[in-house]
Amino acid sequence: MGELRIIPVTGIGEINRADDLAGMICDAVTQMGEQILDRDVLVVTQKIVSKAEGAMEQVDPSDPLSHKPLVERESVRIVRRRGDLIISETKHGFVCANAGIDLSNVESGWAALLPDDPDRSARRIRDGVRGRCGADTAVIVSDTFGRTWRRGVTDVAIGSAGITAVLDLRGSRDAYGRELQVTEVAIVDEIAGAADLVMGKATGVPVAIVRGVDESAFISERAARSSVAADLVRKPSEDLFR
Amino acid sequence: MGELRIIPVTGIGEINRADDLAGMICDAVTQMGEQILDRDVLVVTQKIVSKAEGAMEQVDPSDPLSHKPLVERESVRIVRRRGDLIISETKHGFVCANAGIDLSNVESGWAALLPDDPDRSARRIRDGVRGRCGADTAVIVSDTFGRTWRRGVTDVAIGSAGITAVLDLRGSRDAYGRELQVTEVAIVDEIAGAADLVMGKATGVPVAIVRGVDESAFISERAARSSVAADLVRKPSEDLFR
Repeated sequence: MGELRIIPVTGIGEINRADDLAGMICDAVTQMGEQILDRDVLVVTQKIVSKAEGAMEQVDPSDPLSHKPLVERESVRIVRRRGDLIISETKHGFVCANAGIDLSNVESGWAALLPDDPDRSARRIRDGVRGRCGADTAVIVSDTFGRTWRRGVTDVAIGSAGITAVLDLRGSRDAYGRELQVTEVAIVDEIAGAADLVMGKATGVPVAIVRGVDESAFISERAARSSVAADLVRKPSEDLFR
Repeated sequence: MGELRIIPVTGIGEINRADDLAGMICDAVTQMGEQILDRDVLVVTQKIVSKAEGAMEQVDPSDPLSHKPLVERESVRIVRRRGDLIISETKHGFVCANAGIDLSNVESGWAALLPDDPDRSARRIRDGVRGRCGADTAVIVSDTFGRTWRRGVTDVAIGSAGITAVLDLRGSRDAYGRELQVTEVAIVDEIAGAADLVMGKATGVPVAIVRGVDESAFISERAARSSVAADLVRKPSEDLFR
C-alpha cells in the first residue's frame, strides 16, 4: 500500500434545494487547480446533501428544542432517552442521537434531516461526477455520530457508492501465515473519519478527496453490489445492544 | 486547513520483548528516505507495543478457544456474551471483544494482551522519538474494535501522547455564526482509523505517519494534559449502554 492523501475541497459555497452537487464539486476542484481522478473517494457531508435534496424542515428559531417533535417523527424506535437526549433508530437502521437531525450549519429557523436514501444520494453524485469530469470515483456521504463507551463524536458513512463499504478479509493471512480472526473492516467509516480531519466542524469545508485507498476496495463486482445499507448497518438480530 | 498525508512506515520487521520501538521507527523512516517532523502523528499498532512490552501469554496452539480464560482474567466486567463472543470492560475502561486479546499477527502458541497503560506506552515512544530524531511528535497507540449497531471493525486509539485526544469546539461557531451543538470530536480515533487505511490487517505495516493534522490539536497546555484515559474513555455514570 502506498501513501494516502486527503485534500479539502474549498470554495463550494452555499447549497440550495435542487443544486447540482456533482457539478459544484467538479467546478470547485477545477478552481483549486486540482483534478478528480479514477478511484478518488469523494467524501460529502450529509448537510449539503440534505440541503440539495430539500430534506429540511422549519422549526421555531427561539426554541432550542423545537426540533424534538421531528426527532420523534423520524425515529422508528427510541433506544435510550436521558433528559433532552434521544438515541433512536432511524428508518435507515442507523442508531444515533436525535435521529440525525441537527441545527448547525443551517439557516436559523431550519433543521436538516437525513437524506431519504443516502446510498442513492451517493450514487447520484458519483454518476454526476462521472458525467461531468469523466472520473470513475467512489462517493461517501458522511455524518457525525456519537459512540457507546467512548467520548466524542466521529464522522462515519451514512451512504456510499462505487466502493466496498466493508472489506471482507476472510481467507487473508497475517504475517505468520495464520488466517485472520478479524475479517470485516468498515473502511467507509475509516475514510469518512479521515476526511473529517481536513473538514472540521466550523470551517465550511463540506467535501474532501481521499486519494490512495487500496485498490482492493474498488474490485468492481463487489463495489457495485456494496452500500452502507447493504453491508454496514447491522441487522437487529445480529445486534447485542438494541 | 490544508492537506493531510498518511505515510505507511515499512521495514520495521519483527518486534521482540524489550525492543526499542522509538529507535526502530526512526531507523525505518530514515531507511525510507523520509523524515519525522514536528507535529507528525505517529500511529503505532497495539500489537507491536504489546510485543515490545512483553504483554504476551502462552496459549495452546491446538485450541482456538485457549485464550478465553485470559479474556475472563483481563475483564473487570462482562457486558455481553453470545456463544464464544465476549464483550467486556477492561481495567482501562475499554469495552471491546475478548478484552482486546487476540491471536493474529503473533507467533503460534501466544496471545497478545493490551498494554498495561497504553497512554504511558505512547508517551514513552514519543519521548524516545524526540530523543532520537529531535522531532516533537504526537503518538497514538491504535487497536481494532467493533462497534454497536454497525458491522465491521475500525481502528481506534487506546493510548495517546502529545495531542488533544478529544477536541472541544465549545464556543466555536458554524458558517452561520451559530454556536456548535456537537462540541467534542474524538480526533485520535479518526486519526487511528485513517492510519489503518495504509496499514491493512495482513500487510505487516505496524506504523504510519499522519502529517497535516490541524494545529489546534497540538496547543501544548491542552495536549500535555490529554490522553485516551483522561479524555476519551466515557465514565460509566455518563454511559447509557453499560
